[in-house]
Amino acid sequence: PQVRADVGRGARTGEPEVVYAAGKTPAQTVTAVTALLDGGVRPVLVSRADPAHTTAVVAAHPDAVVHDDAGMLVLAPLPPRDDAADGRIVVVTAGTSDLGVAGECVVTLEALGERPTLLADVGVAGLHRVLEVRDVLAAAEVVVVVAGMEAALGPVVAGLVSAPVVAVPTSVGYGAAQDGMTALHGLLSACTPGIAVVNVDNGLGAALLARRIVRATDRRTAGG
Amino acid sequence: PQVRADVGRGARTGEPEVVYAAGKTPAQTVTAVTALLDGGVRPVLVSRADPAHTTAVVAAHPDAVVHDDAGMLVLAPLPPRDDAADGRIVVVTAGTSDLGVAGECVVTLEALGERPTLLADVGVAGLHRVLEVRDVLAAAEVVVVVAGMEAALGPVVAGLVSAPVVAVPTSVGYGAAQDGMTALHGLLSACTPGIAVVNVDNGLGAALLARRIVRATDRRTAGG
Amino acid sequence: PQVRADVGRGARTGEPEVVYAAGKTPAQTVTAVTALLDGGVRPVLVSRADPAHTTAVVAAHPDAVVHDDAGMLVLAPLPPRDDAADGRIVVVTAGTSDLGVAGECVVTLEALGERPTLLADVGVAGLHRVLEVRDVLAAAEVVVVVAGMEAALGPVVAGLVSAPVVAVPTSVGYGAAQDGMTALHGLLSACTPGIAVVNVDNGLGAALLARRIVRATDRRTAGG
Amino acid sequence: PQVRADVGRGARTGEPEVVYAAGKTPAQTVTAVTALLDGGVRPVLVSRADPAHTTAVVAAHPDAVVHDDAGMLVLAPLPPRDDAADGRIVVVTAGTSDLGVAGECVVTLEALGERPTLLADVGVAGLHRVLEVRDVLAAAEVVVVVAGMEAALGPVVAGLVSAPVVAVPTSVGYGAAQDGMTALHGLLSACTPGIAVVNVDNGLGAALLARRIVRATDRRTAGG
Amino acid sequence: PQVRADVGRGARTGEPEVVYAAGKTPAQTVTAVTALLDGGVRPVLVSRADPAHTTAVVAAHPDAVVHDDAGMLVLAPLPPRDDAADGRIVVVTAGTSDLGVAGECVVTLEALGERPTLLADVGVAGLHRVLEVRDVLAAAEVVVVVAGMEAALGPVVAGLVSAPVVAVPTSVGYGAAQDGMTALHGLLSACTPGIAVVNVDNGLGAALLARRIVRATDRRTAGG
Amino acid sequence: PQVRADVGRGARTGEPEVVYAAGKTPAQTVTAVTALLDGGVRPVLVSRADPAHTTAVVAAHPDAVVHDDAGMLVLAPLPPRDDAADGRIVVVTAGTSDLGVAGECVVTLEALGERPTLLADVGVAGLHRVLEVRDVLAAAEVVVVVAGMEAALGPVVAGLVSAPVVAVPTSVGYGAAQDGMTALHGLLSACTPGIAVVNVDNGLGAALLARRIVRATDRRTAGG
Amino acid sequence: PQVRADVGRGARTGEPEVVYAAGKTPAQTVTAVTALLDGGVRPVLVSRADPAHTTAVVAAHPDAVVHDDAGMLVLAPLPPRDDAADGRIVVVTAGTSDLGVAGECVVTLEALGERPTLLADVGVAGLHRVLEVRDVLAAAEVVVVVAGMEAALGPVVAGLVSAPVVAVPTSVGYGAAQDGMTALHGLLSACTPGIAVVNVDNGLGAALLARRIVRATDRRTAGG
Amino acid sequence: PQVRADVGRGARTGEPEVVYAAGKTPAQTVTAVTALLDGGVRPVLVSRADPAHTTAVVAAHPDAVVHDDAGMLVLAPLPPRDDAADGRIVVVTAGTSDLGVAGECVVTLEALGERPTLLADVGVAGLHRVLEVRDVLAAAEVVVVVAGMEAALGPVVAGLVSAPVVAVPTSVGYGAAQDGMTALHGLLSACTPGIAVVNVDNGLGAALLARRIVRATDRRTAGG
Ligand SMILES: Nc1ncnc2c1ncn2[C@@H]1O[C@H](COP(=O)(O)O)[C@@H](O)[C@H]1O
Ligand SMILES: Nc1ncnc2c1ncn2[C@@H]1O[C@H](COP(=O)(O)O)[C@@H](O)[C@H]1O
Ligand SMILES: Nc1ncnc2c1ncn2[C@@H]1O[C@H](COP(=O)(O)O)[C@@H](O)[C@H]1O
Ligand SMILES: Nc1ncnc2c1ncn2[C@@H]1O[C@H](COP(=O)(O)O)[C@@H](O)[C@H]1O
Ligand SMILES: [Mg+2]
Ligand SMILES: [Mg+2]
Ligand SMILES: [Mg+2]
Ligand SMILES: [Mg+2]
Ligand SMILES: [Mg+2]
Ligand SMILES: [Mg+2]
Ligand SMILES: [Mg+2]
Ligand SMILES: [Mg+2]
Repeated sequence: PQVRADVGRGARTGEPEVVYAAGKTPAQTVTAVTALLDGGVRPVLVSRADPAHTTAVVAAHPDAVVHDDAGMLVLAPLPPRDDAADGRIVVVTAGTSDLGVAGECVVTLEALGERPTLLADVGVAGLHRVLEVRDVLAAAEVVVVVAGMEAALGPVVAGLVSAPVVAVPTSVGYGAAQDGMTALHGLLSACTPGIAVVNVDNGLGAALLARRIVRATDRRTAGG
Repeated sequence: PQVRADVGRGARTGEPEVVYAAGKTPAQTVTAVTALLDGGVRPVLVSRADPAHTTAVVAAHPDAVVHDDAGMLVLAPLPPRDDAADGRIVVVTAGTSDLGVAGECVVTLEALGERPTLLADVGVAGLHRVLEVRDVLAAAEVVVVVAGMEAALGPVVAGLVSAPVVAVPTSVGYGAAQDGMTALHGLLSACTPGIAVVNVDNGLGAALLARRIVRATDRRTAGG
Repeated sequence: PQVRADVGRGARTGEPEVVYAAGKTPAQTVTAVTALLDGGVRPVLVSRADPAHTTAVVAAHPDAVVHDDAGMLVLAPLPPRDDAADGRIVVVTAGTSDLGVAGECVVTLEALGERPTLLADVGVAGLHRVLEVRDVLAAAEVVVVVAGMEAALGPVVAGLVSAPVVAVPTSVGYGAAQDGMTALHGLLSACTPGIAVVNVDNGLGAALLARRIVRATDRRTAGG
Repeated sequence: PQVRADVGRGARTGEPEVVYAAGKTPAQTVTAVTALLDGGVRPVLVSRADPAHTTAVVAAHPDAVVHDDAGMLVLAPLPPRDDAADGRIVVVTAGTSDLGVAGECVVTLEALGERPTLLADVGVAGLHRVLEVRDVLAAAEVVVVVAGMEAALGPVVAGLVSAPVVAVPTSVGYGAAQDGMTALHGLLSACTPGIAVVNVDNGLGAALLARRIVRATDRRTAGG
Repeated sequence: PQVRADVGRGARTGEPEVVYAAGKTPAQTVTAVTALLDGGVRPVLVSRADPAHTTAVVAAHPDAVVHDDAGMLVLAPLPPRDDAADGRIVVVTAGTSDLGVAGECVVTLEALGERPTLLADVGVAGLHRVLEVRDVLAAAEVVVVVAGMEAALGPVVAGLVSAPVVAVPTSVGYGAAQDGMTALHGLLSACTPGIAVVNVDNGLGAALLARRIVRATDRRTAGG
Repeated sequence: PQVRADVGRGARTGEPEVVYAAGKTPAQTVTAVTALLDGGVRPVLVSRADPAHTTAVVAAHPDAVVHDDAGMLVLAPLPPRDDAADGRIVVVTAGTSDLGVAGECVVTLEALGERPTLLADVGVAGLHRVLEVRDVLAAAEVVVVVAGMEAALGPVVAGLVSAPVVAVPTSVGYGAAQDGMTALHGLLSACTPGIAVVNVDNGLGAALLARRIVRATDRRTAGG
Repeated sequence: PQVRADVGRGARTGEPEVVYAAGKTPAQTVTAVTALLDGGVRPVLVSRADPAHTTAVVAAHPDAVVHDDAGMLVLAPLPPRDDAADGRIVVVTAGTSDLGVAGECVVTLEALGERPTLLADVGVAGLHRVLEVRDVLAAAEVVVVVAGMEAALGPVVAGLVSAPVVAVPTSVGYGAAQDGMTALHGLLSACTPGIAVVNVDNGLGAALLARRIVRATDRRTAGG
Repeated sequence: PQVRADVGRGARTGEPEVVYAAGKTPAQTVTAVTALLDGGVRPVLVSRADPAHTTAVVAAHPDAVVHDDAGMLVLAPLPPRDDAADGRIVVVTAGTSDLGVAGECVVTLEALGERPTLLADVGVAGLHRVLEVRDVLAAAEVVVVVAGMEAALGPVVAGLVSAPVVAVPTSVGYGAAQDGMTALHGLLSACTPGIAVVNVDNGLGAALLARRIVRATDRRTAGG
C-alpha cells in the first residue's frame, strides 16, 4: 500500500496523525484522509494543502471544512474539551503578516477541542502593545509566540511570564531574514530561558506541542 | 554598574537569573554571583564556568558546589519540592558522550528542587534499548532527550509518548554534524510532532523549560 | 558534436550512461537518446524529464515508456535478470511524500532487470510500522531507505539489518529541513554505521549503487 | 615599504587611520604606529592587539596607554572636544559578557575627545531594566547598542528613541548563535527601522560611525 | 483585531509605522492603511506592494500615489521640510540595476519631506565616475550607497567623505553573490570605517536611518 | 541620468562595458545600449537578456543579433582579429547541459574578434573522452573549462596542460550541488594549480579573462 | 548506568559496537571498553582516541594495540577471515595527507579479519598515477576512495570500475574546502553514479560499509 | 609507497609538484621532498610548513631555505629566467596584514626564476594610494591582488588595467568576513571583469597561475 495510516497514534501520543499534503498527489491525499477516517481517527486534519489537494478532498468528503489562509482542511473535529478554557493557551503574533502561520495553529487547536485566545500584531517596535496584553499572557498556561523577521517578541514575552513559551519563527522578512532561519536561530539563542522552539512556519507543530503541555496538566489533575 | 542583577525574575517567571560565565572575567562572575545572593535569589547558578571562574567563585563563596563535568556551580540550592517526584521529568541520552550536556540539565533541575530520572546511552542504533525503557518514558510528565550526531532518538521517543518532549541537540559528532547544527535542524524537521527544541548543548535551557511545564501543572492543580 | 555518447560505459562500469534532461533542450535530449540507442546501449534511460522533454522524446521514439511521477523515460529495457529475485533489493520510504523519489529508484532498477520490493510509509513516528517489516528488511541483500524531513528511518533501519543500507535523503519538508540538506547531513552523521549516502532526491543514483552491490555478489558467485 | 600610512585620512574623513594588529607581526605593528605618529596623526589607536603586540608597542612608545580588556592601545589621545557632552552618545549593553566589545567602542570615543555614557547589562529578559533607562536613551543624539545571542535589545531600543541606533552584534552565545552571525542577521532583519548595523564585535567601527553622526551635527551647527 | 496600528510611533521615534505588504492579504493591507490614516498618521506608506495590494489600496483610497518600480504606495505625504535642502542626503547607486532599491529610498524620503539628491550608475569599474561626483558626496550630511554584486562602492565612498555612509546591499548579481548576502557581508567587513549597513534591498530602512541622522542635527541646531 | 556609459573602458582595460540586463527594465536596457553605441563603443553586448529585453532592444536596433540559448545580444561586432587563430582559446564542457554557459563565452569571444574552439561533453565519467582531446587542449594558449555538478573536469584538465585554465562552474545539478556553489568551491580547492576561477555560470567573465590572457601575449609579441 | 553496551549488535548487523572516544572522559571510555569485552564482543575498537583516552585504556587493558596516526585502539582482533583475500577491498588515497583517514579504515578492516589493499597518493593532478593502478581497481569487489580538497578522484575512479565505490571525503585543504564539506558535497554531486558517500574523515564508517558489501556476497555465496 | 612523486609534472604543466605539508607528518614531508629531489624536480617547494616540518626538512636537507612568514621552504631554486623582468608580474596587497599570503606568492615566483614586484598596503580606504601606483599596475603583464576583508581592491584594480588580474582573497578580518569567504565571494561577484580568483590565502596558486600566463606569452613569443 502507498499509505499505512498510523491509526494508533492517538492512543500512544494523544494526537492524531496529520496528513502532510505537500509532496503528495491529490489522489494520495484523499487516500490518506479516507484511511484515517476509516480507521476511526478523530479529527482528521490536512496541512499544507494547495487548491488541488483541497478540491480533491472536498470532492471525496464534502463535509471537510476548508481554511484557505491556513492551508488546512478539517474533518470530524472534536467537540470543545471539558478542560478547555479561554486563556489557557494564548497565541500571540508580532505582525499581521504572521497571521497565516498563527491560523494553522489556531485551526489545529480548535479542531482538537481547545479554545485558544488569539492576540495579533503586538510586535516590539511598539513595546506598549506587548505591555498592554501582559496580564493575559501572564495568566496563560502556555503562550505561543508567532514572529518573523528578528522574532524579538519571543524573548520579551518569555521574560514576562512563568508559563512555557512555544515560539514559532515565521518566514516573514527578506534578505538577512533568510526565509525564517534568522528568526529560528535567534529564538534558539535567546537570552531568556523557557522557550520551546519549533520549525519555521510550523503552526501545526506548535499547536500539538502546546496541547501536550496542557494535557499533561489535565492528566495529572485528573489523576490527583 | 557592570552588573544589574534581575532579582525579580523568580517572581515574574518562576526561575532565577543564571550567571552565564562564558565571556565574563572571573571578577565579573563573582560580582554577579554576589549581587544575586545579596538580592535574595535562590538558588544561584553559574553555567559554562571554566576553571578560572570556578576558582574565583569558590574563593569568594566557599560553599559553592562545583560540578566539573557539567561546567556548573550551585549556591544556596532549593530543597526538594513537595510536588517533585521521581519520574515526572525523565532525561534520556542517546550516547555516553552526551552526558556532559545531560549533566547541565540534571544539576539545574536538582538545584531547583526537582527530582529528575536519568537514563543514559539508549541510542537508536540499538533500538531495543529504547523499547526497554519505553514504560518509564510513557509515564513521564515531560521527557528531555539529549542527542548528538543525527539525533534520531528525538522523533523516535516523541512517537512513543504523549508527554511533551524537550529535545537538546548536542555537538557530539564531526564533519556533516556541523557542531550540532545538523542535530538541531533534524529535530526541528522531525516527522513526529510534540517536540520542543532548545539550542545546541543547552542543558540548562531544557531544564528550565521542563520545569515551566511541570510547574504549569502544579499551579493548576493547586488552583483546582 | 554537442553530445559524445559514452557507449562503452556499460562494459566499464556495468551500467549505461543515463540522459540527465535537466538543463538540456528537448532537441538535445532527443539527440542524446538517439545516440545511445544507435550506439547499442541498453536500456536507454532519461531522468528529470519535464513535459517538454517527454513530448519530444516520445515523438522521436514512440515506444518510450513514460513514468510521469518519477520524471523518467525508459527505452529498450532489459528483461528481468536470471539472478534477480524479489527481496534482494528492498526499497522503503518513510512517508507517502517520498514516493516520487522512490519511483525514480524502482523504475531504474526494473529497467535494468532487477526486481525490487517497495515498502512505503513506514516512518519512525509510528515505530511499529518499521518493526512489522523488520524480517523483510533483514533478509535483503541491500536496503534502500528513502526519507525526508529528519530522515531518522535511515539509522533505525541500519541498526536492524546486516546488509548495506543505501540512504536517499529527500527534499520533503520545509524550513530547517533546508530542501533536504538536513536529511542529507543527518544521514551522514548517523550514529549507526553501514549507511551509504547519495545526493538529495537521487533515486537514480541509489538504484545504480544498489545494483553495483548485488552485481558484485553475482560476479563472485559466478566466479566461485 | 610594508606600510603606507594614510596620514591624510583625518582631513578626508574626520577620523585617523587605526592600526589593525590582527595578522600583523609585532614589528609591523610598531612600524605602523611610528609612521602614523611621525605623520602627525592624532590620536594613534591600535585595535585587536594581543600581548605580543602590546609589549612591542609599549617598548617602542612607553607612553602608550594599554586597555587590556578592549584589546586596544592609545597614543597621543585628543583632549575632550568642546562639543562633547555627557549623554550625546550613549552606549548600552545587553549583558555583562558584552563589555569587552563595548570597551573597544568607549576607549575609541574617549581617545577622540568624546564623552560617551555607558549603561551595562540591560537585556530584555528583564525588560524593566530597559524601561528604567528609557529617558537617558531618548535624550541621546545617537545610541550604540551592544548585544549578543539574539540581540533583541536592538529593535526594542530603536522603537523607543528617535535617534539613530548603531547596533553592534557580539559573538556572545553558542550553537545557533553561530559566533554572532545570528545576532547580526537578526539586527539587519529587525522589525524596527532606524538601526545602523556594523560587523560582529566591531566596537571600533560603531564608535567611528557614532562620531561621524555627531560630527555631522556639529559641522552643521557650526556652519548655521 | 488583526491590526493594532502603532499610531504613536511618530511621536516616539520620529517616523510613522510603515505597512509591510509582503505576506499580508490585500484586505489586511487596506485595513492597516485605513487604521493608520484614521489614527492621524502622516504620511502613510506601503512597502513591498504587489499589483494585488496596489489595486485594493487604490480602490479604497483613490488618492494613493503608486510608485511601481519601487513597490511603494504613498498617502498623505508631508510637505517639504523647512530644514530640507538639496544635497544634505545624497543617494548614489553602483549600477542602473540598483535603481529599484534606490527608488524605495527616495520615495520614502520625499514622502517625509526630505529632498534627496540621486546619483545613478557610478560603479567602481569606472572609477573616474566616482571621482567626478566626489565633491557632491563630500558636501553631504549623509550618503546612502546602493550597490549589489561585491558592493565595492561602499568602502570607496566611505574613504572619501566625513559623513556617515548608509550602505544598502542589493540582490543584483548571481552565483557567489548569493542574493545579496555577499554584498551585505562585504560591506560589514569593509576596511573603511563609518559605514552603517542595513538589510539587503532595504531602501526603506536606509531612508529612515538617514532621516534620523539629519533630524538629530536639526533637533540639536534648533535646541542650540 | 540613469545610465553613465563607461565609454573609456576599452581604452583602459581592452574590453567594452557590457550591458547586464538582469534587474534592468527593457527601457533602461535600450538606453544603455544606445548610450554605448553613441559613445563609439564596439562591440556592444547585452548579457542575461530575457525575451522582454530582447524585444525592446531589437525594436530600437534592428541589426542586433540575438543568441537565445546564451541570453545574449550582439551589436556592431568586431571583425576577426589578425592574431586570432583557431585553437588559441579552447572552450571545453563536461556535459551537454553546460552548453548554455559555454555559449555565453563563445558568443562574447567571437563578437570581440576571437576564434574559439568548442569541445562539448567530455566529462570525466568517461575519461577516454578527455584523453581523446588531450592534444588540442595541450596546444591551447588558454583553456576554458565549463563544468557543473562536482566539476572534476577542471583539475583533470589543469594537470594535463601548461596553459592557464579558466574554470566556469555551472549551476547544473541539484541537492548538494547547491546551485553551482559546490562546483565553485571544488574548483577553488582543486589539488591541481593553474586554475583561474570565475563566478557560477559566468561565461562572459571567462571570455573576457581568456581574452586578457591572449592579449597580454599579443601586446608583448607586438612590442618585442 | 552510564554505558549500555549493545552487545547484540554483531548478531544483528554483523559489526560490533565501536567506542567513540571523542566527548567521553578517559574513565567512561575504559568503562565502555570493559563492558564490551565482558559482553563477549570481538573485536573491541576505540575510535577518535586522544592520548588521554589511550593511556587510560592501555592501563586497564595492556594488550590493547595502539594505532596513533589513525587515533584507534584495537582489542581482541578477529583472525583473518577465510573469505578475505587481497584485493577484494582496495583503499586508495588522493594524497599523502589523506593517510590518517585511510589508516582508520584499514585498521578497522584488519581488526575485523579483512585484508584490504592500500594504494596511496594517486591524485588526479597526475592522472597517469590513476591509470597505472587501473587494473587493481577494476578487479576489486569494493573500492574505498579517500580524498580531500575537491575529491575529484572519486568520480574518476567510479567511471573506471564496476564495483561500488565508497568515498570518504577528508578535511584536507583550506578556505573554500571548508573542512571537507566541499569534498563531501562534490562527491554527492558527482557526474558518475555508483558512489556511496560517508561522512568527512569517516574512515571507520567506510570500513564497516565496505565490509557489509563483501559480507553480502559471502552470505549469498555460502547460501547458494 | 606512501608517496608517489609526480616527477613528470614539470614537463606536462610547466610547474613542479609542490609538497603540501599541512596534514603530513614531518617524516612524510621529508620523504616527499627527497623523492622529488631524487626525481630531478627543480625547484622543490614545501608550502604550509609549520616549525616541526621545517626542522625535519632542514635536518635532512641543510641547504633548504626557510621563509618563516610565508610558511615555505625552498630547495634547488631556479636561476632568474632570461625572460623575467621587473614589472611583468606585479603583486599588490590591500593591507600590511596580507603580507604573509603575498609572501607565499613572491617566494614561489622567485624560486621559479621570476622577478615579481611587490607593492604593499594600497587599500581603497585611501584611494590615492591606488592611484599613485596606477602606472606600475597598468604596465604589468599580470597583476596579483592580495586582499582580505571585503577585498574591494580587486575590482578597483581590474577596472584600471588591461592585464589579467589574479585575485587572492585572504582570511584577514573577522565576523562577517567569515575567514575569507566573503572576500572570496565578493571577488567572484565583482562588477569588473577580467579577474581570475584563487582560493582563500592561496598565494602559491596565484603564483603558479600568474606564471602560466607569462609563460604562455613567452612560448608564443619564442615560437613567433
Ligand atoms: N520594507 C520594509 N522592510 C523592513 N521593515 C518594514 C518594511 N516595511 C515595513 N516594515 C516594518 O515591519 C513591521 C511590519 O509589521 P506588520 O505590518 O504588523 O506585519 C512594521 O513595524 C514596519 O515598520
Ligand atoms: N568514528 C566514528 N564515527 C562515527 N560514528 C562512530 C564512530 N565511532 C563510534 N561510532 C558510533 O557512535 C555511537 C557512539 O555512541 P556512544 O558511544 O554511546 O556515545 C556508537 O553507536 C558507535 O557505533
Ligand atoms: N505541517 C506539518 N509540519 C510538520 N509535520 C507535519 C505536518 N503535517 C503533518 N506532519 C507530520 O509529517 C508526517 C508525514 O508523513 P507522511 O504523511 O507519511 O508523508 C506525519 O507523521 C505527520 O504527523
Ligand atoms: N599551498 C597549497 N595550496 C593548494 N594546493 C597545494 C598547496 N601546496 C601543494 N599543493 C598541491 O596539493 C597536492 C597535494 O597532494 P599530496 O602532497 O600528495 O597530499 C599537490 O598536487 C600539490 O600540487
Ligand atoms: Mg504591525
Ligand atoms: Mg553508546
Ligand atoms: Mg505517513
Ligand atoms: Mg545580565
Ligand atoms: Mg553601469
Ligand atoms: Mg554527457
Ligand atoms: Mg601527492
Ligand atoms: Mg594599511
